[in-house]
Amino acid sequence: MKKILCGVDIGGTKLSTALVRQDGTVLDKCIDCDHVDKTEIQLAEQISGNIIRLLDKNKLAETDLLGIGIGCAGHIRFRDGVIITTSNLKGFKEYPLRDAVQAHFSVPVILDNDANAQAFGEFKFGAGKGVENMVFLTISTGIGAGIIINNRLYRGYTGTAGEFGHTIVEPGSGLKCTCGNHGCLMAVACGMALPHLFREKIEAGEKTRLDLPAGFDYSMVDGKLLKQGLEENDPVSKAIILDSGYYVGIGLYNIFQALNPQLIVLGGGLLSWGDFYLNHIRKIFYERARDMIFDPFEIVISKIGSDVGVIGAASLTLELC
Amino acid sequence: MKKILCGVDIGGTKLSTALVRQDGTVLDKCIDCDHVDKTEIQLAEQISGNIIRLLDKNKLAETDLLGIGIGCAGHIRFRDGVIITTSNLKGFKEYPLRDAVQAHFSVPVILDNDANAQAFGEFKFGAGKGVENMVFLTISTGIGAGIIINNRLYRGYTGTAGEFGHTIVEPGSGLKCTCGNHGCLMAVACGMALPHLFREKIEAGEKTRLDLPAGFDYSMVDGKLLKQGLEENDPVSKAIILDSGYYVGIGLYNIFQALNPQLIVLGGGLLSWGDFYLNHIRKIFYERARDMIFDPFEIVISKIGSDVGVIGAASLTLELC
Repeated sequence: MKKILCGVDIGGTKLSTALVRQDGTVLDKCIDCDHVDKTEIQLAEQISGNIIRLLDKNKLAETDLLGIGIGCAGHIRFRDGVIITTSNLKGFKEYPLRDAVQAHFSVPVILDNDANAQAFGEFKFGAGKGVENMVFLTISTGIGAGIIINNRLYRGYTGTAGEFGHTIVEPGSGLKCTCGNHGCLMAVACGMALPHLFREKIEAGEKTRLDLPAGFDYSMVDGKLLKQGLEENDPVSKAIILDSGYYVGIGLYNIFQALNPQLIVLGGGLLSWGDFYLNHIRKIFYERARDMIFDPFEIVISKIGSDVGVIGAASLTLELC
Repeated sequence: MKKILCGVDIGGTKLSTALVRQDGTVLDKCIDCDHVDKTEIQLAEQISGNIIRLLDKNKLAETDLLGIGIGCAGHIRFRDGVIITTSNLKGFKEYPLRDAVQAHFSVPVILDNDANAQAFGEFKFGAGKGVENMVFLTISTGIGAGIIINNRLYRGYTGTAGEFGHTIVEPGSGLKCTCGNHGCLMAVACGMALPHLFREKIEAGEKTRLDLPAGFDYSMVDGKLLKQGLEENDPVSKAIILDSGYYVGIGLYNIFQALNPQLIVLGGGLLSWGDFYLNHIRKIFYERARDMIFDPFEIVISKIGSDVGVIGAASLTLELC
């Protein structure tokens, strides 16, 4: 029997743990929603307990595992298996999560940035299968990315490569990123920008067709609300979606010039805006790339669905092969 | 005897050919200034003839060479050894220069982008010695770059990776790059931007201390003139140098977030502006990178001097080892 991969995805609301077959399909999984209240040690125990329970339930032994991959948002020092900082878990600073989980297992444990994990998952099982060089970009509340170079994840010196969300594309922008800088791609183009952009347009006198309550709290504006606006042909929602697409298109163009990949794969919640969004991203990209594309190049949507977090984390263990 | 490296640098005004020792020192070189008027085939003959003459003059045989590396500005399809486009040579389109030179030699011939060649030279012999991951950026009339990942040049799918000069850092800018886009790093930060920036400031009423003739042609504004302005404490020259430093600082910050290298090496003519320029580049960079630098990181000046073009081209042959 081919060994089973184990993946753990530490999200902002869910802790997902899954056993994954080597074809990328999920054998079994479990989801906890109480992990953000745990201490560092408690989280390591929770992850280890979940894995052991999933193995027992599926009558598998630890030796049936190829390894355990853990994906976590934030800055990860890959070589040391350390969470440097993460916005998902309060108080986690320079925490050696990999070794804390490794203490419970003899198979190798890998800790990486969640976007790196998703990128490798798409490369192994999804839209990037068969490609040698690609970039994966996930666009939701924030923007994360992973870089595949010569069939391997490129992590950089610390392990923080691929932070295209923090590259600056509009230096004079009033929009501030969580990192403290103005005009990062993340600040102007993804979920965290939507409340500002919506309020700005309403305050400038633009009229929304969305039926919002009196005293509406603009901080509630998110991708779902704008998707509803798009469906209701709301000009404010549509303008914001196009604004986001404009900056994402520029971001992808910059990635194309910097890395000359064969493929860029897009994932994340804002892709639910569909073709209206994707077509604008592509339009902005191709208007700039024009005659500088010398070989086949594509911008495509991720193929792994909602389980991309755990499947991606599990795929990291295939790097060991 | 260790084999000798041969390097050829096809510049916009000079064709340099050199024999280089494996420690990166030049054994002998020759320079032509008539190559831009040649046809494609004539250029291949000129390069081959120069190499054979240099070998004869130094009592060396072709078998004493490790290989021949050729650096050329523009878009190079590395795997095929083809110049896709280059602004240095008129009419060169999709020309297989590597094979045309290879026809004269039995040792391997390599053709690459000139900034890639310089990057590899700095990595092997200069400021990047001992580093595994670095980016080299040359700032002169245009901006070129090369990426070293895991001790090797990363060229991307076509061979055009590292075009940070074409990444867009000010989308709303009125300044247009030779590529046709607005707000590329190249359009706003390097030699090609200087005439526009100078005229703009003068037309806005700013006073220069430079003693310019009546009817001065602004297209003559270049790095040398601004260096003179800097030395004469000219406020217009200094403001433009700071503007350039601002965008280069943002460009370096974007490279840092994208690739997380250990080191960025800067070269090119505009570095003659000295510490006034470099300090501003560093200031802009560190103001943005702040607490997101988790491991030692440096921005340094290239160590190979004016021969970086041919030495870099020659160093490409060490990739064969």
